[in-house]
Amino acid sequence: MARVVKKFGGTSVADLERIRSVATIVKAAVDAGDQVVVVVSAMSGVTNQLVGLVGDASPLYDAREYDSVVATGEQVTAGLTAITLQQMGVDARSWLGWQVPVRTTDAHGSARIEEIETELLDERLNSGQVAVIAGFQGIGPDNRITTLGRGGSDTTAVAFAAALQADRCDIYTDVDGVYTTDPRIVSQASKLDYITYEEMLEMASLGAKVLQTRSVELAMRYRVPLQVLSSFSDRPGTMVVDEEDIVEQAEISGIAYSSDEAKITIEQVADRPGVSAAIFGPLADANINVDMIVQNVGAEGDSTDVTFTVPRADMERSVKVIEGLSDDLGYTSLRADDNVVKVSVIGVGMRSHAGIAAKMFSTLAEKGINIQVISTSEIKVSVLIPDEYTELALRALHTAYQLDAA
Amino acid sequence: MARVVKKFGGTSVADLERIRSVATIVKAAVDAGDQVVVVVSAMSGVTNQLVGLVGDASPLYDAREYDSVVATGEQVTAGLTAITLQQMGVDARSWLGWQVPVRTTDAHGSARIEEIETELLDERLNSGQVAVIAGFQGIGPDNRITTLGRGGSDTTAVAFAAALQADRCDIYTDVDGVYTTDPRIVSQASKLDYITYEEMLEMASLGAKVLQTRSVELAMRYRVPLQVLSSFSDRPGTMVVDEEDIVEQAEISGIAYSSDEAKITIEQVADRPGVSAAIFGPLADANINVDMIVQNVGAEGDSTDVTFTVPRADMERSVKVIEGLSDDLGYTSLRADDNVVKVSVIGVGMRSHAGIAAKMFSTLAEKGINIQVISTSEIKVSVLIPDEYTELALRALHTAYQLDAA
Repeated sequence: MARVVKKFGGTSVADLERIRSVATIVKAAVDAGDQVVVVVSAMSGVTNQLVGLVGDASPLYDAREYDSVVATGEQVTAGLTAITLQQMGVDARSWLGWQVPVRTTDAHGSARIEEIETELLDERLNSGQVAVIAGFQGIGPDNRITTLGRGGSDTTAVAFAAALQADRCDIYTDVDGVYTTDPRIVSQASKLDYITYEEMLEMASLGAKVLQTRSVELAMRYRVPLQVLSSFSDRPGTMVVDEEDIVEQAEISGIAYSSDEAKITIEQVADRPGVSAAIFGPLADANINVDMIVQNVGAEGDSTDVTFTVPRADMERSVKVIEGLSDDLGYTSLRADDNVVKVSVIGVGMRSHAGIAAKMFSTLAEKGINIQVISTSEIKVSVLIPDEYTELALRALHTAYQLDAA
Repeated sequence: MARVVKKFGGTSVADLERIRSVATIVKAAVDAGDQVVVVVSAMSGVTNQLVGLVGDASPLYDAREYDSVVATGEQVTAGLTAITLQQMGVDARSWLGWQVPVRTTDAHGSARIEEIETELLDERLNSGQVAVIAGFQGIGPDNRITTLGRGGSDTTAVAFAAALQADRCDIYTDVDGVYTTDPRIVSQASKLDYITYEEMLEMASLGAKVLQTRSVELAMRYRVPLQVLSSFSDRPGTMVVDEEDIVEQAEISGIAYSSDEAKITIEQVADRPGVSAAIFGPLADANINVDMIVQNVGAEGDSTDVTFTVPRADMERSVKVIEGLSDDLGYTSLRADDNVVKVSVIGVGMRSHAGIAAKMFSTLAEKGINIQVISTSEIKVSVLIPDEYTELALRALHTAYQLDAA
């Protein structure tokens, strides 16, 4: 007997037929003796429709009202799922965020879970009842409904798994696991059986949109074993676990890429103490999230070139901020380029295997791909390259690191 | 300055454009210095859609889950209405049943309001904030969402008006008031400026579907002045008030009809003590609501004919119940007929005017309409006639009682 949280995303509960498939999966676990908590998203399309209504009512809407409107999507799915389970003879009831309650901060629209009361749920689970939780929602200190931000149902699922000390948290989606890279680009991509939390975090934040980043952080903090799998097939998925639970480490686990990047280069900035602060302080004040940064000493010794990346949507705004600093910085030219892609190789194996980065650079060089910016962390190496080389780079790296499916 | 509850039905909040019209009406009242409580229904069509989903999920659904799903309709409208008001510069917030809270019985699907906590609302209203209440819903003793049954938002509105000691409760709908009879059948029908609670109750329960019966009972009990009016025009509607507030009483106020009737006749039942109980006891046990009853002494002195009406949907079931009693009752024949209509003339003026019933019978006789069953109460006379005469009877009576519009 295990206690398991199973989370089903929008496409997995898109209509009553899909909800019946979900109920069949849940019933199988119950019949096998498991205690099951189900976390559901809104039926696919519903959240967008509700968000659209709110935006049409007023572009500057009250986030508290937004939350109250948008949270109905999960409320409907939770009720329908409980009814469907009951019809299959499974004891079940729905729980809304305020009923549990799931206490959150008051940051409406992107609240964080602070506490989940588990006493009553514990009792019901022990008595064999399935708890169907409306994902994505909680209740704030103002006694009003809060939502956790897009993709928040993943976080709901992991938070319940942690609070209820579940043995596993299964995240059902429309793909059957985490892949070595995007299978739409590299047909040789293969599903990973295991990946570590740290790697998954890098994968998630680098654009592999399988899990919400916050849910992975939470799973890592509370050591909740996560499984990513498909509700459309019954194959096992990818387990996201602690590093020590993976016996044999490959050099790298996966290759991620992100097109949501823009590169900005400031040429011949006066090279004096405090110049970095003079550039990045104002960008931070403008709420622009700077990612990669490179500083080169320019041709003349007293000036330097600074290159950095920002989210593509913030490129124009970033240029305006820097232009406003031109008197102070005294640069010669300012260039912005959004035809770039960030490609990253990721793997905890990097800690023990040498030469991972060197292999990346030489592989790209062999293909004639020019690297514009490099950044590294303990378990990843990222490079910025022209975006027309995305496919070539991913394929070449996938082969070089021996990730191609047999 | 007055404190007013304004309730808007489904067609009045059918889309964002209609919600903007509602907000304009509310803003006008606020600008005039009124304290305003708005009660909203689900956008038209939404409740039916949600009820359909629940029914498709399982014909035998859990009423608690039904309530949780169906209550989302009003939750969405309340949020959108609050946002729209805010956009027009009106301070407003939405309130869900559990937030107020509106405490109800645990009869899920048709709960009754037991208590409304008003302290916080009172405070907000006094500070000038508009309270937008999600109609139709409350919270049961089990801490789960309850709903009040179809049309329940009228009851929500009246209950808030009573609890908050409002000066008036405006019920906005898609007709501009209560008419002397159905204008689709009698083009001469005219809008009433005033009607008493008692008359409105008879009108409501006899098929004029303007207000939910329960809401009128509640308004009468707490002496809440009700106004029925249209959100699509700005003409005054019909005031539902105490009898003493109406200066001049017409003989009758309106003529109602109901096609939801079926007549059952049992011929030559043994005429012995207890025979009525032997018939109507088993029907009551089968949850069949008997309305009109007539008992005639038959041709032979020791037997009697019994005729009664039941809801049309219960006719077949009623026949089966009576057939099951044939040994005991020893009747000679049993006939059922659903080609009947109940026509009623209604008016508190009946108490002071003589000959109201006689005028009804002679008017129908002049048109050659045969009366099958008669029943009377203090303020109404109802007759059962063949349903093919519905239009003829309504027109003739409308003229006879001088209700025709000038």
